[in-house]
Amino acid sequence: LMLISRFAPTAGKREKRAYDDIPDEHPQVLIAGFGRFGQIVARLLSAQKIAFVAIDPDVEQVDFVRRFGNQIYYGDPTHHELLRSAGAARVKVFVVALGDVEQSLAMLRLLRTHYPDAQVLARARDRRHAWQLQDLGAQVFRETFGSSLEMGHDVLVALGMAPQQADERARRFRAFDEQLMEAQRLLQDDEAALQQSARDARLELAELFEADAGKGALGRIVGEKGPE
Amino acid sequence: LMLISRFAPTAGKREKRAYDDIPDEHPQVLIAGFGRFGQIVARLLSAQKIAFVAIDPDVEQVDFVRRFGNQIYYGDPTHHELLRSAGAARVKVFVVALGDVEQSLAMLRLLRTHYPDAQVLARARDRRHAWQLQDLGAQVFRETFGSSLEMGHDVLVALGMAPQQADERARRFRAFDEQLMEAQRLLQDDEAALQQSARDARLELAELFEADAGKGALGRIVGEKGPE
Repeated sequence: LMLISRFAPTAGKREKRAYDDIPDEHPQVLIAGFGRFGQIVARLLSAQKIAFVAIDPDVEQVDFVRRFGNQIYYGDPTHHELLRSAGAARVKVFVVALGDVEQSLAMLRLLRTHYPDAQVLARARDRRHAWQLQDLGAQVFRETFGSSLEMGHDVLVALGMAPQQADERARRFRAFDEQLMEAQRLLQDDEAALQQSARDARLELAELFEADAGKGALGRIVGEKGPE
Repeated sequence: LMLISRFAPTAGKREKRAYDDIPDEHPQVLIAGFGRFGQIVARLLSAQKIAFVAIDPDVEQVDFVRRFGNQIYYGDPTHHELLRSAGAARVKVFVVALGDVEQSLAMLRLLRTHYPDAQVLARARDRRHAWQLQDLGAQVFRETFGSSLEMGHDVLVALGMAPQQADERARRFRAFDEQLMEAQRLLQDDEAALQQSARDARLELAELFEADAGKGALGRIVGEKGPE
């Protein structure tokens, strides 16, 4: 009830009006979380004149996005009532860009319960979070992976490697690491994933280095000679 | 003195031995910070058989990397004595992958003082941090930018855009945003940058949306019609 009263006076009315006026133009994309990550997705869409509906707990942050033809709802995107009011039933692609791991998993569970066929693209903090999101059917994007791989590429170039060769090495590394991710995910035990200790994380990184060198248990599972 | 005694018994001896044995094989890359970001850079290098020297404050985290031919120093990379012991004078490319903004800026200032010509690639938390690092001569990588743009690309594809067209849109958006970054940086006042309020951040995001639409003061400075 508190939740409903929280967004009903603003978002509720706005949503109702929007439904009445432009029933066929409801945005196909819902973005949950309008921080550093969600903003870039939103700006890329906005630059293509693709409208979105966004949900963020911070009222002050994003009020202006309405000026650009978008809808914004304030509140907790892990509450179904808010998602429903934001028009989730008509959304084609859900973007879960929440920075908080628990919130992100809670929202995924909610989407799986109420919109089992929805296409979900989700921001992941790290490998472990990524596995959990994948188990819930999301396509994942580890939040620092893209930029760190770009930097690695540029380090290779700074050391004298031809840019085209560096492109190829980075591309292979990405493909190899995605195979590793999948192999690790299948080895995961849900409970173990939630109780991971610092020691496990260290062993895991050592296994990754070994697999990159074409060695170790993971390397054998992937059955490749590393990303080179 | 405490600093010296902290690393001297382990790192100091190891470094001396390394110098004695393989004076010409000192790694050309120093990686400061071995978290999610630095690990990917390190693994990409390691997969190409390029050795690195790493500095991280957490002893437990990365001890195993020595098995793969790399050197690891424990301690605070914002202390010159530690950098010197790690062989910074012979390093060609510095990777500043520290997650903490203040630590990262402190290390950049240190590098600029003692190794003014060093090539520095740095992880940035956000635009503001990126400007400060650029003012200190670093090539910057905003830590969530790459992955968020990848997700934006995949949202376009999920909505039915041809992958090649989505590639082109994402590429243009990146180029445009880099121009915006540069225009904003030149408008920055150092003191203002450090005292930025939430209100400024909101206005700034609104300006970015305007510029993406080919409007507003920033849009006029960049002199383009947005990334489309």
